[in-house]
Amino acid sequence: MKKTTLLAFSMLFPLPTFAGDIEAGKAKSAVCAACHGQAGISTAPIWPNLAGQKEAYLVKQIKAFKNGERKDSSMAPMVAALTDADIDNLAAYYASLK
Amino acid sequence: MKKTTLLAFSMLFPLPTFAGDIEAGKAKSAVCAACHGQAGISTAPIWPNLAGQKEAYLVKQIKAFKNGERKDSSMAPMVAALTDADIDNLAAYYASLK
Repeated sequence: MKKTTLLAFSMLFPLPTFAGDIEAGKAKSAVCAACHGQAGISTAPIWPNLAGQKEAYLVKQIKAFKNGERKDSSMAPMVAALTDADIDNLAAYYASLK
Repeated sequence: MKKTTLLAFSMLFPLPTFAGDIEAGKAKSAVCAACHGQAGISTAPIWPNLAGQKEAYLVKQIKAFKNGERKDSSMAPMVAALTDADIDNLAAYYASLK
């Protein structure tokens, strides 16, 4: 397909854009998958699905778990060592899933 | 279609079951839609999508907002008057959406 055709398509059907790096987030998500599932669909009713969740909301919640504003004894240790970039990337990855 | 055929189909493709009353939850959700969207897809990046979320997780979070365990100045007044049945129904409704 010609570049101009591809450009035209990308304007007709814009892909969602994400602030974080999806691939880096995917790499970082291995430890999350035990509860939230390989594809962001959680493995138990008490844990939330993350697939397709709003990126900004995910960033806000991970930071809330990290700074103790949102308290959860399972999540606190999981997010303690995450950098702001890690958090952005994880949020982008989960937001990008269906 | 015969009842037995319907039964056979329902066994092949079991519909997900919900603890709450989806229709009652839908009726109660009008006030939620302003932020979380008519179909559970929120209207701003900072608010979570609720469509297809785990029912038990939704129940737990609404109760956490209500009892102050999870603090959010927007959510607290919205859930203050909900009964346990309302909460079950709302959770069933949002969990039932795609």
